Amino acid sequence: MTFFERLRERIQVANSVLCVGLDPDMSRVPEQLHEKELPQWAFNRRIIDATHEHAAAYKPNAAFYEDSEGWRALTETIAYARGKGVPVILDAKRADIGNTARQYAKLLEGDHAADAITVNPYMGRDSVEPFLAREDRGVFVLCRTSNPGGADLQDLELASGDAVYERVAALADLWNANANVGLVVGATASEELESLREQVPDLPFLVPGVGSQGGDIESAVEFGLSDGVGLVNSSRGIIFADEGEQFDKTAGEAAKRLKRRLNRNR
Amino acid sequence: MTFFERLRERIQVANSVLCVGLDPDMSRVPEQLHEKELPQWAFNRRIIDATHEHAAAYKPNAAFYEDSEGWRALTETIAYARGKGVPVILDAKRADIGNTARQYAKLLEGDHAADAITVNPYMGRDSVEPFLAREDRGVFVLCRTSNPGGADLQDLELASGDAVYERVAALADLWNANANVGLVVGATASEELESLREQVPDLPFLVPGVGSQGGDIESAVEFGLSDGVGLVNSSRGIIFADEGEQFDKTAGEAAKRLKRRLNRNR
Repeated sequence: MTFFERLRERIQVANSVLCVGLDPDMSRVPEQLHEKELPQWAFNRRIIDATHEHAAAYKPNAAFYEDSEGWRALTETIAYARGKGVPVILDAKRADIGNTARQYAKLLEGDHAADAITVNPYMGRDSVEPFLAREDRGVFVLCRTSNPGGADLQDLELASGDAVYERVAALADLWNANANVGLVVGATASEELESLREQVPDLPFLVPGVGSQGGDIESAVEFGLSDGVGLVNSSRGIIFADEGEQFDKTAGEAAKRLKRRLNRNR
Repeated sequence: MTFFERLRERIQVANSVLCVGLDPDMSRVPEQLHEKELPQWAFNRRIIDATHEHAAAYKPNAAFYEDSEGWRALTETIAYARGKGVPVILDAKRADIGNTARQYAKLLEGDHAADAITVNPYMGRDSVEPFLAREDRGVFVLCRTSNPGGADLQDLELASGDAVYERVAALADLWNANANVGLVVGATASEELESLREQVPDLPFLVPGVGSQGGDIESAVEFGLSDGVGLVNSSRGIIFADEGEQFDKTAGEAAKRLKRRLNRNR
């Protein structure tokens, strides 16, 4: 079963296209968890318990797990989320030359691995090929990102008349021989969302930026989905909706509310 | 003291512009080290002992350390190399949106942190800003990479007439307010090396691809250095020159030989 087939099932079961970003920034994780052995995992576990029935997927960002204990917390988190039946996208934004990319691709191997990963297209096809080769795993290619600097390179006009991000979408479409490729397109770029949906109708989008970054929810849902499959992500808007002792309860409510708002536009 | 001032001193002391890539691929690390507690660290330690007098810098690629034990091995490696007086560049190719990039930037914090890092420019300025802000640390921006897919995006012609990689060089030059920015330019792209040196005379280059990838050594040295500062990297060509018990001795000889070849072109 491909990643997108599994995701389609999950979207149906949960009646949700919400992806919850698991970015346990320790400066915002409630104090009482700081003394746990793996505080990021302790935090994520409570977030997952409170939000999983509303989540079509979880997306831990690798940046928040980059030390020895962090990797253990990440491994526990991935296994726990998958145990709840929720697919996990590792937001790693990786790419490297051949032998090194194969090394990164091991992040998708084994029982406790993520179901999908995000990759950066700047180094071209061979730098992401080891990810593309895994038929049962998904690959989301960064296309038009939600941050202000996203325009610096991605919006440049090519001699052919396309923008760089449009060329990236075309490349990603070519790279989709295993039906396992999607695009990351920020909700803050709603015109680009619309034109990209037209350009590559078959690629599901992962759309970040609707929460703290203020992106448009309607176009995120309208253009993010391909034949009903796609994800709209919120991280801080859910997991840090409340930084007190009831953080998990509040996160669950925030997830439910956003799921419903998204569903009204499906 | 900025990173490039430290690097200039090291280049003079070691009489070398050689950067040794520490990519301990476990499928090539000698069997007898696999039973050590942290095999990558055991391997790197012997490589550093054997090569440090020829090395202007070490460059561990983060892909080879991405698990719980790997991060411990990486931390030990960085501390040990710096203890020998050799600066360390973490080849991480990172970039992310603001709050997440700040998280990655912590990889440059503290006594045991790397001296410099490689970053991916696709997401634009704010995605690398937290790295640029550290005046005492170096930032190498991926510009024209040495892999075959490097051409897919980087060589595209813009409406302005420049190639994408030339625009990246111009952006990196703008981002250099703290005199801490360099470029990654592969030795396999010798024409691009020459034209980039002309375009941004003040930016030191980190030039990979002279070993297993077959890039041109002469142009790597001639165009890689800015006022004598820059690095030419070899990874597999040195650390896996011999996969038997004498691997460290052979690596030391390979490093010495490459250092001399580079020096003949300085």
